[in-house]
Amino acid sequence: MIEKPIRFVDVCFSPALIHLHDITESIVVVIDVLRATSSICVAFAYGVKSITPVASVEESLAYKEKGFLVGAERNGEMLDGFDLGNSPYSYMDPKIIGRDIALSTTNGTQAIAAASGAYKIVIGSFLNLDTLCNWLKQQDRSVLLLCSGWKNSFNLEDTLLAGAVVEGLQNDFDLSKMRDSALAAQHLYNLAKDDLNSFLEKSSHRIRLEKLNIDSDIKYCLTPNQTNVVPVIVNGALVNVI
Amino acid sequence: MIEKPIRFVDVCFSPALIHLHDITESIVVVIDVLRATSSICVAFAYGVKSITPVASVEESLAYKEKGFLVGAERNGEMLDGFDLGNSPYSYMDPKIIGRDIALSTTNGTQAIAAASGAYKIVIGSFLNLDTLCNWLKQQDRSVLLLCSGWKNSFNLEDTLLAGAVVEGLQNDFDLSKMRDSALAAQHLYNLAKDDLNSFLEKSSHRIRLEKLNIDSDIKYCLTPNQTNVVPVIVNGALVNVI
Repeated sequence: MIEKPIRFVDVCFSPALIHLHDITESIVVVIDVLRATSSICVAFAYGVKSITPVASVEESLAYKEKGFLVGAERNGEMLDGFDLGNSPYSYMDPKIIGRDIALSTTNGTQAIAAASGAYKIVIGSFLNLDTLCNWLKQQDRSVLLLCSGWKNSFNLEDTLLAGAVVEGLQNDFDLSKMRDSALAAQHLYNLAKDDLNSFLEKSSHRIRLEKLNIDSDIKYCLTPNQTNVVPVIVNGALVNVI
Repeated sequence: MIEKPIRFVDVCFSPALIHLHDITESIVVVIDVLRATSSICVAFAYGVKSITPVASVEESLAYKEKGFLVGAERNGEMLDGFDLGNSPYSYMDPKIIGRDIALSTTNGTQAIAAASGAYKIVIGSFLNLDTLCNWLKQQDRSVLLLCSGWKNSFNLEDTLLAGAVVEGLQNDFDLSKMRDSALAAQHLYNLAKDDLNSFLEKSSHRIRLEKLNIDSDIKYCLTPNQTNVVPVIVNGALVNVI
């Protein structure tokens, strides 16, 4: 009988701390709940073919000339000249079916770039929680949950999703020597899980986003299991592997 | 009537993230519960005159030649040729009364160095919790609680103390726009406060320290209000300002 390798789960609270983790043999789950990784899950659920994360707004525009749809957001707002913003609702549109998208966001795409040395990079949000956990269980790899945060600062909504994934993996991974960041995420998720929306009402990002009038976006992004997708980076672009 | 300025409380989970905070006008509380900042509080309670934080073991030895007592710890263990280690009990000794100490530790003294641009640097631990909070309330300054962590990684025990200070300051500081790190620390402290010791039993640093056989150190370091001291950096050395 071949024994399965022992797999660990870890959480990194900021792309600025990724250098503390050896990710070369791990699957890194990039998390930006409000709203990049939530919108990415919706886009694949609605039939997009690929999403190429790009660092700068200028780079996205170069993709537009190659026939891509382009999405961009800075500080929570959609930018002029772009086809798509950062609201999950803007991706519920037949025009994206079968298309390639180039996407640049304040935090999410930067976190994907920070994870570039990983064995594999995959997208996580509440919207694909169970599908993601099931897929991770099927891989023989340790997992690092990378919270995008807000401009490298810790944020609660990404931490709660990281905690939810820790909970989801607990029977299949070795949590006995889990680091404190993962323990904290798990504690916070268990504290919040009965009403994520109320728990996050006081959070700084929520306050920051309030003026953008995106309350329905936020409620949707905190609703587990609305999509059956696992977006994974393959040759520089995200594709759905489910 | 002169209105008091609005003061904020914030938490930084790692010295590697200190650059995200403008600390020039703030008081930075350096926290390394297990065990540097706990031992520093004990040393002042037992009559030490000053503690000079030094970055390297070599630098400490140069201070020894100048008549200082020298303390050093690396990876939790005391080093040969030093007078003092990192256990709070080693500072409960009449030999330290009126003496100057040069101290180098794995995390605590590095965090003090990271805070060097602050308006003022002060030492926090459970051992001086109430005295520290009362002193902070008397200053007209915002406060950043800097967790030393373990080699720049997030740790739970420092976060719990940060959360305890947030709780202690809530009636005197403006918490309405508090950042998520401070909210998380406060949530975790409230979850843990009835039995800090049990809450931390699974934590990674606790597991790391287990092999050092310092269970009584840990229990002591998690006991609030054993000392009435506020160690503050003045001209490069810590002195007790109470």
